[in-house]
Amino acid sequence: MLVSAILTSVGINSALCVLFFVLYSILKKQPGYYEVFIPRLLTEGNSKRRSRFNLERLIPSTGWLPKAWKLSEEEMLSSSGLDAVVYMRTITFCLKVFSFAGIIGIFILLPVNCSGTELHQIDFADLYSNSLDVFTISNINLGSKWLWIHFSSVYAITIFTCYLLYREYNYISSKRIAYFYSSRPQPHQFTILVRNIPVSAGGSVSDSVESFFTEYYPTTYLSHIIVRRTSKVQSLINDAKQLYKRLLHLQSEPSEQKCKQAGLFGQKVDHLDHYGKRFEDLEQNARLEQSEVSLAKDTHAAFVSFKTRYDASTVFHMQQSSNPTHWLTEEAPQPNDVFWPFFSSSFMGRWISKLAVVVACILLTILFLIPVVVVQGLTNLSQLEVWFPFLKSILTIAFVSQIVTGYLPSLILMLFLKIVPPIMEFLSSIQGYISHSEIERSACNKVLWFTIWNIFFATVFSGSVLYRISIFLDPKNIPSKLATVVPAQASFFIAYVVTSGWTSTASELVRIIPLICSLMTKCCAASTDDEIEVPSIPYHRDIPRVLFFGLLGIAYFFLAPVILPFLLVYFCLAYIIFRNQFINVYAPKYETAGKFWPTVHNLVIFSLVLMHVIAVGIFSLKKLPLASTLILPLPVLTLLFNEYCRKRFLPVFKAYPAEILIKKDREDQNDATMSEFFDKLVTTYQDPALMPIQYCADSDSLNRPLISPAGMSM
Amino acid sequence: MLVSAILTSVGINSALCVLFFVLYSILKKQPGYYEVFIPRLLTEGNSKRRSRFNLERLIPSTGWLPKAWKLSEEEMLSSSGLDAVVYMRTITFCLKVFSFAGIIGIFILLPVNCSGTELHQIDFADLYSNSLDVFTISNINLGSKWLWIHFSSVYAITIFTCYLLYREYNYISSKRIAYFYSSRPQPHQFTILVRNIPVSAGGSVSDSVESFFTEYYPTTYLSHIIVRRTSKVQSLINDAKQLYKRLLHLQSEPSEQKCKQAGLFGQKVDHLDHYGKRFEDLEQNARLEQSEVSLAKDTHAAFVSFKTRYDASTVFHMQQSSNPTHWLTEEAPQPNDVFWPFFSSSFMGRWISKLAVVVACILLTILFLIPVVVVQGLTNLSQLEVWFPFLKSILTIAFVSQIVTGYLPSLILMLFLKIVPPIMEFLSSIQGYISHSEIERSACNKVLWFTIWNIFFATVFSGSVLYRISIFLDPKNIPSKLATVVPAQASFFIAYVVTSGWTSTASELVRIIPLICSLMTKCCAASTDDEIEVPSIPYHRDIPRVLFFGLLGIAYFFLAPVILPFLLVYFCLAYIIFRNQFINVYAPKYETAGKFWPTVHNLVIFSLVLMHVIAVGIFSLKKLPLASTLILPLPVLTLLFNEYCRKRFLPVFKAYPAEILIKKDREDQNDATMSEFFDKLVTTYQDPALMPIQYCADSDSLNRPLISPAGMSM
Repeated sequence: MLVSAILTSVGINSALCVLFFVLYSILKKQPGYYEVFIPRLLTEGNSKRRSRFNLERLIPSTGWLPKAWKLSEEEMLSSSGLDAVVYMRTITFCLKVFSFAGIIGIFILLPVNCSGTELHQIDFADLYSNSLDVFTISNINLGSKWLWIHFSSVYAITIFTCYLLYREYNYISSKRIAYFYSSRPQPHQFTILVRNIPVSAGGSVSDSVESFFTEYYPTTYLSHIIVRRTSKVQSLINDAKQLYKRLLHLQSEPSEQKCKQAGLFGQKVDHLDHYGKRFEDLEQNARLEQSEVSLAKDTHAAFVSFKTRYDASTVFHMQQSSNPTHWLTEEAPQPNDVFWPFFSSSFMGRWISKLAVVVACILLTILFLIPVVVVQGLTNLSQLEVWFPFLKSILTIAFVSQIVTGYLPSLILMLFLKIVPPIMEFLSSIQGYISHSEIERSACNKVLWFTIWNIFFATVFSGSVLYRISIFLDPKNIPSKLATVVPAQASFFIAYVVTSGWTSTASELVRIIPLICSLMTKCCAASTDDEIEVPSIPYHRDIPRVLFFGLLGIAYFFLAPVILPFLLVYFCLAYIIFRNQFINVYAPKYETAGKFWPTVHNLVIFSLVLMHVIAVGIFSLKKLPLASTLILPLPVLTLLFNEYCRKRFLPVFKAYPAEILIKKDREDQNDATMSEFFDKLVTTYQDPALMPIQYCADSDSLNRPLISPAGMSM
Repeated sequence: MLVSAILTSVGINSALCVLFFVLYSILKKQPGYYEVFIPRLLTEGNSKRRSRFNLERLIPSTGWLPKAWKLSEEEMLSSSGLDAVVYMRTITFCLKVFSFAGIIGIFILLPVNCSGTELHQIDFADLYSNSLDVFTISNINLGSKWLWIHFSSVYAITIFTCYLLYREYNYISSKRIAYFYSSRPQPHQFTILVRNIPVSAGGSVSDSVESFFTEYYPTTYLSHIIVRRTSKVQSLINDAKQLYKRLLHLQSEPSEQKCKQAGLFGQKVDHLDHYGKRFEDLEQNARLEQSEVSLAKDTHAAFVSFKTRYDASTVFHMQQSSNPTHWLTEEAPQPNDVFWPFFSSSFMGRWISKLAVVVACILLTILFLIPVVVVQGLTNLSQLEVWFPFLKSILTIAFVSQIVTGYLPSLILMLFLKIVPPIMEFLSSIQGYISHSEIERSACNKVLWFTIWNIFFATVFSGSVLYRISIFLDPKNIPSKLATVVPAQASFFIAYVVTSGWTSTASELVRIIPLICSLMTKCCAASTDDEIEVPSIPYHRDIPRVLFFGLLGIAYFFLAPVILPFLLVYFCLAYIIFRNQFINVYAPKYETAGKFWPTVHNLVIFSLVLMHVIAVGIFSLKKLPLASTLILPLPVLTLLFNEYCRKRFLPVFKAYPAEILIKKDREDQNDATMSEFFDKLVTTYQDPALMPIQYCADSDSLNRPLISPAGMSM
């Protein structure tokens, strides 16, 4: 690819970004779009719809930028939780790494690369007409001593990144503990989920739980709630609630409309009657189902609450029964985080569904490119003309054919990629996790590896899936193969950063899909304030994206340092835009207290090792075997560093230590509100579907049917 | 190899076995060798030295056979502990598997193999002159339908073995729990080892432990003992004790000897004086060192005891400090099992020593064959004559040259193999384990994989180490390579079973090395009864041997069923001989309560998967690709079965479940002797080197300097 081509792409995408910024700053000020652009502020009551029109509303402004910039970490922590802080720290981590890498890359490596003559001499007179390859390591002459600079820079960036990783892990683990210290008593801290409860003949699960815990934990056991399958009754209740709302709507229709409908008055009464009858039927059905569920065979699982955090934690940590597949304990999720349409309490059932999901993920990852490749057959115009002869006349138009062959395939690939996060989320949800947050973390990992396999490796080894697999089955030759193919794709990935990175991040600001949805609902019905749903940020979509760009940056750092400025621009955009979105749009639905960081850490380590493997290959290709050998200790040391971090920090992310739990419990002993808290705790995990049906306009529970109404910071 | 050659080998080795049996039954009856053959019975007082000579003593007898045969599992459990039971059950497990395999192999597979004509027709007229290959799968014609019988038998043996494995795991885990239930209160059940204790400036480790546990576990904490480095003072005390014994010996020398030494009386008095003075010096040094150690900077580790088993277990299971590298908890070993000359309490120190040991093991495994190959240069006689010209005349003698070329290299290989278990034990001991039993378990694993790599893989891929590694770096071709080389080595491994298996097991009966030692000490000095040391069985030498034969049997079962009868004979020999040794020779020094079984289980699973991989290769070589494909689910299912067993049984082998601990604690509440037990518990883990020096003839503590005198079933 020529420099001019890249610059064109940069130009187009910069223009797009500016367009999005302008669009955002105008639309944001229109009261009609408040629920799209500032839903969080609206529900928090910090912003009111101003219906008075003024010209100012149509002038683009940059007022939101300083506001987003000034947001401190403490404010963010208190308003959006530790997960948002971890997400923003991931971006600043990448900014730090690539600032350092950028300085080395642009001021040291780039001039060295340009000085080479392996491909061809650089044409300083007409920079635009140079191929991008001139700026990569490929241009360095074979056996050149200049390669030692690349060698040193690989060491430098590895040491710098590991140092930052260590500091960051340390900081986030201390934040996690501080967060726990400062949190008010929360139900999930006192509760565990017990599965595979063995039931004696004739007895019920509830009796079994009661007798087990009163026998073995008489002083600490507080209460329990049996888990039941309520998806059917839940859907009945939802139907009833929706019908109820429609009824209300019909009854309260404004008089002018009534007048208009005068001729149809008889019909309206019919409507009311009809809906009223259906509503009564539904309600009765729901009540019937409720009582049936309460009597039915249950799921052999229960939430068991204890009097202190420490006691709950000891029961969670220890194997309870002499049969390790009975009385399995798990940390309870936050009450509003509970999710189990696919809950399976049997040991084998969960195990098999887990295996099935692993197989499904592998199949999806392997087979993903098949539809894409078929669609990319579009590039072959003559084939298309054979299939669809009637298109012949249109396809002869140069512009149309350019779009069809040049833009459509990549657009289709992008669309296919868009549906991956929801698919992975679905797969994770049937894997047996019992909380939204666990599902999201698992989906995040799945999307991450899917992206790496199907974008990075699929691009560099531009062959069939079987070819890619065969490469990994031949571990000896991986470095040399990577070294041959990875530098060749530098220009593609620069274009990818600019297109997918810049533009999609800027489009995050405009929130295209919610905007379209809002426009469509506006055409159909007027919405009211209390129907606004504040979204939560989909970490399983955004974390993999940030990390994938991090991987690209680290892998290409010493091969093609030209990529680094583009990446820096991307991370700056992401930094400011996501801060803004955390203020205006996203509200946390649950809190993992920083559990996403180990994923980030692992991927950065993977990226470093990938860079080392490529370096080994490159230096042997460039006839510098000594450098190739001297790189070898680096991946070993990096992996050892990773192992050390796992031992040093990871345990805190798995469970809180005894010291902290006991301290926190002691603090509570003097708290007068604790008895009230324990009273509430007994019913917190009660399934909302089994409680008396309430017909308030509870939009929240309608939109998220399986989340109990108990707030997250009860 | 021809049938006749194998039969010759069988003949020679059977004769050797009979010889060992005869020798044993005679020597065993000689009072002079009681401490070699029945040390256990002697120390237990069940057998007395009969000095009266009678002819019966010189006639071989078989009286010990029925005695060993009749020993029931309960008797064995009470006399030799659960580990011995697990060891014997490993042998009976192999007997069961290979009885089943033998029936299929000899009555179904063998006739099928013989019916083939791929290599050559079997010569029934002169069976002896047939090559052994005629009896292997290599003789089956390409694409023959008969191969489906082999295919089915692979499935049959896998299912049968897995069924037995499941039953056995189930049985042993229930035995383990029963053993715990029936055990009397033991110090290690109430104690944990805490490492990496942070010390505040100016404070001592003891203060730190005291304040931490009284703060966080005020109701359950009992006492603690700081671990100190006592190897120096221990060696001083040992010297002093030995000197004291020599003094006693000199003083109490019988009068007749005194008379003899009359002329040297002056000298003797000098001796007494001299030794007396040296003894006083030593004693003073030891006392000085003792007080120094007590004041010195300690190891930042302590044994902490609790009031109940459950409390100790919860502290062990939970991370204590918010820094996961501080207050590391570990289950305490039995007091007589403690071992720490190489104890390192620092987190990094242990980690680095572990890494160093892993590297050392890998290096040893990879480089082991180099000295052996050099020595095996002996087979090249002409080379030897060039090196040592003076040997020329001797080497021309046919017999000598046969020995040198034929027997010496394999003898040297065997000797090298003999030193592997001690080396591995040493490596495990510096790895940071704190008990003999842990060291032995770790060494057992090391020896096992060493044996598999350096005997099985080194024999089948009879190439250089690099060649073997290159094979495993090319995973696609492993099945076909294994399928080519493994059947070719069938006759070698039959000979190996007969030579190494039969003879070395029979020689276990005669206890060659202790016998030689005993003969040598007899020449020098008369031994007394109270110096007898009862050995414990070296599991890290014997378990890998049994398992390696199991691996051979499973791998060769469908390739060369001829091997199975020889294996069955081996397991029968091992069964009767080890039962006898458990009665007469070995006494347990510590008890892991069946923790060796998971190792056995894993190796059997590995053997099965190895067989499947070979089967995949064989069936494609034999042009039966369908069978090759249909084998593929088998390793997957086997590994899933293994995973299930890990989940179902392994947790019980890691730690006892809460249910059992609590029940056991409740039983003790009514026990009047518990207060006495707790009084003792406070000092049980006191290092014997720091206690007042006692000069009783405590042979036991002399021979095992770092084992505290508190018995294992205190």
